[in-house]
Amino acid sequence: MAQLRDLKDELDIVIPTIRNLDFLEMWRPFFQPYHLIIVQDGDPSNTIGVPEGFDYELYNRNDVNRILGPKASCISFKDSACRCFGFLVSKKKYIFTIDDDCFVAKEPSGKEINALEQHIRNLLTPSTPLFFNTLYDPFANGSDFVRGYPFSLREGLPTAISHGLWLNIPDYDAPTQLVKPRERNTRYVDAVMTIPKGTLFPMCGMNLAFDRELIGPAMYFGLMGDGQPIGRYDDMWAGWCAKVICDHLLLGVKTGLPYIWHSKASNPFVNLKKEYKGIYWQEDIIPFFQSIALREECTSVQDCYIELANKVKERLGLVDPYFEKLGDAMVTWIEAWNELNPPPPAQTATLAHPNVAMKN
Amino acid sequence: MAQLRDLKDELDIVIPTIRNLDFLEMWRPFFQPYHLIIVQDGDPSNTIGVPEGFDYELYNRNDVNRILGPKASCISFKDSACRCFGFLVSKKKYIFTIDDDCFVAKEPSGKEINALEQHIRNLLTPSTPLFFNTLYDPFANGSDFVRGYPFSLREGLPTAISHGLWLNIPDYDAPTQLVKPRERNTRYVDAVMTIPKGTLFPMCGMNLAFDRELIGPAMYFGLMGDGQPIGRYDDMWAGWCAKVICDHLLLGVKTGLPYIWHSKASNPFVNLKKEYKGIYWQEDIIPFFQSIALREECTSVQDCYIELANKVKERLGLVDPYFEKLGDAMVTWIEAWNELNPPPPAQTATLAHPNVAMKN
Repeated sequence: MAQLRDLKDELDIVIPTIRNLDFLEMWRPFFQPYHLIIVQDGDPSNTIGVPEGFDYELYNRNDVNRILGPKASCISFKDSACRCFGFLVSKKKYIFTIDDDCFVAKEPSGKEINALEQHIRNLLTPSTPLFFNTLYDPFANGSDFVRGYPFSLREGLPTAISHGLWLNIPDYDAPTQLVKPRERNTRYVDAVMTIPKGTLFPMCGMNLAFDRELIGPAMYFGLMGDGQPIGRYDDMWAGWCAKVICDHLLLGVKTGLPYIWHSKASNPFVNLKKEYKGIYWQEDIIPFFQSIALREECTSVQDCYIELANKVKERLGLVDPYFEKLGDAMVTWIEAWNELNPPPPAQTATLAHPNVAMKN
Repeated sequence: MAQLRDLKDELDIVIPTIRNLDFLEMWRPFFQPYHLIIVQDGDPSNTIGVPEGFDYELYNRNDVNRILGPKASCISFKDSACRCFGFLVSKKKYIFTIDDDCFVAKEPSGKEINALEQHIRNLLTPSTPLFFNTLYDPFANGSDFVRGYPFSLREGLPTAISHGLWLNIPDYDAPTQLVKPRERNTRYVDAVMTIPKGTLFPMCGMNLAFDRELIGPAMYFGLMGDGQPIGRYDDMWAGWCAKVICDHLLLGVKTGLPYIWHSKASNPFVNLKKEYKGIYWQEDIIPFFQSIALREECTSVQDCYIELANKVKERLGLVDPYFEKLGDAMVTWIEAWNELNPPPPAQTATLAHPNVAMKN
């Protein structure tokens, strides 16, 4: 099992919020060594309180507009989709993003769960999307590949995404919330697994980590909320796009541990209003993503994402004009990503002056 | 959640063995209401002791030869692969098969696990191979489909196979046994999940249940043991064939709960001898199964299996002549299956006399 590296200088914690971040008090022992990027949604004149002792930068809508100029149009307003602005401005290799109604959960033994540590473990160990291991994560302590697992596949693939789960309030859609208002998730499943290649999953943004260098440009949370016909599909959209690209680039996506304690069910009536178009659109969106084949020439996440944006406009544009707008925003997002995240200087110099290296 | 039906008259328990079945004492509270089919491997003149009070039929090699005649060549000898003879002669809709070194496991709470009851629950509730549910089995108590799971897929598909797991001795191959002689599986993962469509898995025959009507003819455990160049790949072979056919026919395969307590590690040196050809052959076998596309006209398990047998001979025959023999045995198996499991009389009459119905 891989030794856990210290990622204090390599990971940012991104938190979208509209309120004081008192929830950080409970996370202090785990988060305080890390840098926070707070994306303030809603009225920029509000002041967000951050508990003493945390190292953070905070961006409100005015900052988004100032930094991105006209490209700010791709960042959603009044929706947690705005969190992806934090991914854009981070300079770190890894991101952990968490909602401000998520608290520290406990193992069945009563031990508090260091969610961030488990995410780091998930990201720093390989994934196994090409074949299913029945004893779950073969890189976990006390586990391995079972009989019949091909040896050539046991090195695994690099892990791009670690999707954590939620105890207490499960991540249900509005219709399920309405039908089962009192259902709570009490089942602690002690497993991490790789989602197989070719299989889509519903990615929730509440408790999520990823390798920004491997998959960052695909973690765009779409156009949601204010002025858009849809909400609460931001993380789903990012998950479908990212999974298709991970499959194409042979990167892994894990789900399972760590759990957080999700404290507050959102209002199902409000949610239904936000979701209802998504609920029927997804019946077309899923077959679209299931049938996607990216061209072999797409070897970077950016290439893949632009190709995907074109297909979204071409094929989902027939479902609703919204998807043409979304496809355009996906292209804008990549432009903004490339502007704020230029290739490393050495590489730029080499590209700009191909002969420099030869002179030395 | 589906009400659990009583399957006493619809399920047989199949046990391959070479010794007295004292292990049944521990299972008595759970198994005694059911009918057992015991397949005695090895010397037919040995007597297998069965504890009092169990309802069983027992077949030794002489019985296999008498019942199948020349077709008995498809049933392995001196290998647990002989268990599939029990699947052939059963007249029930469901099969549960278990090894005689498997005992009752306990939940972390200390409660004894009724493995058979959990298998029945798995088989009687649908599978979800077309999309991944992050909260695991949506048909389990207190669980459901999460936000972003398409509503059109929530009915699920019929479940053909329920693959249970093992506490204590994990199902490792010989090299892993040699490297980690003391590793024990102590992790109780409280989950059942569907293995996604298009994903292969290593199916272990130690603790396995299936719907014989849905997938029975694909549960052939191959040519292993005495006179064959390979052993310990019987269940793997059945699993690869069955999964490809389940995917084609839109049937589900679940893995996870229930656990049994696997008491005894087999000898890794003996295992290495049995496995070593399998270990390198599987590097060709897996890509073969991953690339299989069955013709649309194959609408029954038998059709699919014959098509698969032909492809095995044609494509894996290039790897080793053994696979030509195996392909022939697969065809013989289907012939034996059809002989012992003819279509129901009504259907036969209609097919034989298509005009009978019209006269009435």
